[in-house]
Amino acid sequence: MSNPSGECAAPEVDPRVEALVHDLIGRVADKWTMLVLEVLEEQGELRFTQLSRAVKGVSQKMLTQTLRAMERDGLVVRTVHAVVPPRVDYRLTALGRGLGAAFCGVWIWAEENLMDVEAARRAFDDRD
Amino acid sequence: MSNPSGECAAPEVDPRVEALVHDLIGRVADKWTMLVLEVLEEQGELRFTQLSRAVKGVSQKMLTQTLRAMERDGLVVRTVHAVVPPRVDYRLTALGRGLGAAFCGVWIWAEENLMDVEAARRAFDDRD
Repeated sequence: MSNPSGECAAPEVDPRVEALVHDLIGRVADKWTMLVLEVLEEQGELRFTQLSRAVKGVSQKMLTQTLRAMERDGLVVRTVHAVVPPRVDYRLTALGRGLGAAFCGVWIWAEENLMDVEAARRAFDDRD
Repeated sequence: MSNPSGECAAPEVDPRVEALVHDLIGRVADKWTMLVLEVLEEQGELRFTQLSRAVKGVSQKMLTQTLRAMERDGLVVRTVHAVVPPRVDYRLTALGRGLGAAFCGVWIWAEENLMDVEAARRAFDDRD
């Protein structure tokens, strides 16, 4: 994101490209996508049931939708094994690992600023 | 996010802190939060109506909810000016600017990998 302070200055881009980037950000800036990226990055290939346990609080429906969107975007590979009962595994692609690495800064920010956010919340709740 | 490849290795943290970090990520990894951060970072202080025009596709209700959550988290400051009609401005705090900078990597990833994601989508749609 380009900004006057130059913290994330990007070269001027074609407005059409910018609109596509916004759409893509809208798709991937999603907590379930981010949590699935983290779990698969840490644990490698996992089955659906393992993923649903590792991604705390996700519903089966939401996990199915998230994985399908991630597969469509080229972030995960879904492998169906011809066994009985059928086994389906998910793992990150190089593109998915790249996005996981890009989200690093956000995890680090969250770790470093957790106490400030909690203090802000307490102040807000006391005020209202 | 810690991972075997060491791309975003974090020191081992208290599981209680990790749960709080996950909660916080769940709150801020949201496309409207990310788009509001970008707009305010680029344009400084804005009124609600200016924000609603700058954040493409956001509904008034969703923008109100997003700004309220961001204010509670200490990411934006809301200033009410005693004029007629009342004017309400929003600007980022230092905490909000820090989160905006942390999301930089994700914007850069999106710009760099847009074509790969589009190719993956076309392949997926042709297959199904």
